[in-house]
Amino acid sequence: MKKIASKTSTIVCNDGSWKFLADVIENSNFSKLFIIVDPHTEKHCLPFFYKKIILTNAKIITIPAGEQYKTIETCLYVWNQLSQLGADRQSLVINLGGGVVTDLGGFVASTFQRGISFVNIPTSLLAMVDASVGGKNGVDLGVLKNQIGVIKEPIAVIIDTSFLATLPKNHIISGIAEIIKHGLISSELYLNESWIFTIENPMLCEKLVWDSVQIKHRIVTEDPAEKGLRKMLNYGHTLGHAIESFCLEDSKKPTLLHGEAVAIGLLLETYISSELLGFPKAKLLHISEKITSLFPKVHFNSKDIKEIIKLLIFDKKNTHGIIQFVLLEDIGTPKTNCIVSNELIEKAFKFYEKCIAK
Amino acid sequence: MKKIASKTSTIVCNDGSWKFLADVIENSNFSKLFIIVDPHTEKHCLPFFYKKIILTNAKIITIPAGEQYKTIETCLYVWNQLSQLGADRQSLVINLGGGVVTDLGGFVASTFQRGISFVNIPTSLLAMVDASVGGKNGVDLGVLKNQIGVIKEPIAVIIDTSFLATLPKNHIISGIAEIIKHGLISSELYLNESWIFTIENPMLCEKLVWDSVQIKHRIVTEDPAEKGLRKMLNYGHTLGHAIESFCLEDSKKPTLLHGEAVAIGLLLETYISSELLGFPKAKLLHISEKITSLFPKVHFNSKDIKEIIKLLIFDKKNTHGIIQFVLLEDIGTPKTNCIVSNELIEKAFKFYEKCIAK
Repeated sequence: MKKIASKTSTIVCNDGSWKFLADVIENSNFSKLFIIVDPHTEKHCLPFFYKKIILTNAKIITIPAGEQYKTIETCLYVWNQLSQLGADRQSLVINLGGGVVTDLGGFVASTFQRGISFVNIPTSLLAMVDASVGGKNGVDLGVLKNQIGVIKEPIAVIIDTSFLATLPKNHIISGIAEIIKHGLISSELYLNESWIFTIENPMLCEKLVWDSVQIKHRIVTEDPAEKGLRKMLNYGHTLGHAIESFCLEDSKKPTLLHGEAVAIGLLLETYISSELLGFPKAKLLHISEKITSLFPKVHFNSKDIKEIIKLLIFDKKNTHGIIQFVLLEDIGTPKTNCIVSNELIEKAFKFYEKCIAK
Repeated sequence: MKKIASKTSTIVCNDGSWKFLADVIENSNFSKLFIIVDPHTEKHCLPFFYKKIILTNAKIITIPAGEQYKTIETCLYVWNQLSQLGADRQSLVINLGGGVVTDLGGFVASTFQRGISFVNIPTSLLAMVDASVGGKNGVDLGVLKNQIGVIKEPIAVIIDTSFLATLPKNHIISGIAEIIKHGLISSELYLNESWIFTIENPMLCEKLVWDSVQIKHRIVTEDPAEKGLRKMLNYGHTLGHAIESFCLEDSKKPTLLHGEAVAIGLLLETYISSELLGFPKAKLLHISEKITSLFPKVHFNSKDIKEIIKLLIFDKKNTHGIIQFVLLEDIGTPKTNCIVSNELIEKAFKFYEKCIAK
């Protein structure tokens, strides 16, 4: 069994993972079970879940699908549901869904009656390789991503890559962005494998998902409170988050999936790395080519870019009003707390425009 | 200096406490300072605060006064204010006020960008002897008290009993309920002193406040997550919270201050203790006499009592649908996880009715 266990949390993948969950539930004497889903996972994942595990009397709480509902208002709905359905401190919340369900459900559980146990069952690629590990949870505040939340580990994370077959193709692609990021910050070998990720090859798929989980787990274990090392996981996200927020706010732009915005952020920040830290040019060109061929292309005019730069100030890594980037000296050698001028950010967008014009 | 220090938090009282806070701020390189107040503490406590400590550029966030505003909606207002005023992970929140300000402000800080530092400066007697110690924070969900929250220690608690002079008399009386509770669960000597608590005698006042802080601190240090021992702090609160919620909901009842409701709860639960655990009758009568002479008397008819019993199910100590009381075998010898029949609760209310009819 693929398994990573710590004192407070266990991550298991594929074979044996459902048996593991069944054992946890059987041995824990929970007073009640609640499953949080969205309409998609209720329809496509819940039936599979019930084939894998026998639960009587679990109550289903359905939240609306989509990042725009990752809000305190949705939390209020779930807190009230839990309260009305008789949840108490010995209850268990099972989050069955993508990053919105696991982030929001984890926050709701961590704050209901000052914290009850929860299990995450990520059903999207993004949630499997990213949201599932590290205990970060929370919701957005307006267009600002993950401004409200806490860090608390689920008691278990159950990863079953069979769920990936339920996803539309753009959601798979979106998840690949985080796999690419894990390659960029940790290993060229893994990065090269990430370009050929496909769910058509289950063995490769499982291997790449599990490798990503291990990369992330290694980093967050050394720095759970994000004092230093963990910041490298934000590679591509400083600009990626701002782009995502900007596109969400601007009705003329396409609403980007998280990974689609992050992919653009990865390209931009790799360009900035090459200008500031001497990241090898040949590798930059290869990465840019791969990213633009995989992900949607979005045009930004100079007014858009100015708005995106304004949004950077809300990045949670910033302190004392200074915007802090993670950059790369090379693949696998990140450097945190880098300062980047607005001019260089604008230059990076110009480079991106050239890449997508090809 | 009266001081209790742990790895993550320090409580200081009166002499030297402001110097301690000034040192913390000077040595910590916070990016920005925010002070959360309500209109009362903004008017009556903030000027005193600024006499005691020199802060330039602290931003004031004012929330409405009163338990009815201890809600997620108020949190949303404060989160948005923090965001708009440029708070980041290195910012400090100072909560200057009673239990509503410290509970809500602590929760907002613990969840803003997944947790920033905060200091509590309790200005009410209740907040000094109760809310300030133990790291519990949170807000109400409808009429259900403290359903949403986390446990996180402030980096410092600054207790200055001079603030008590700013309080109306009924708020002092309300705070005495928690002092009485600390006596009931821990020591007859302290209980006897609690009956003569007055702010007219500053030495006695400071001594009793600090003793209460120490009693509570000893208990929560041994059991921060409320697995066992800490539950004894809920003495009087199982019925007290339900009475408080009931009176808040029912427009015909007076809105009770927290301590006023808890005082009734203490009397009821001491009666139940005498019936179930043989708590000495003579002491029960003495305590009942003292409580009814100090606190407002409220009449409950049998319909009221039924409604109050219904609300008990939402008590956070309950699990598996069983309502769990803390009861006393004698003063200083509490017993947790006691089961009480509805009939006995009704009998306790009849006893209370007799006490207040005298």
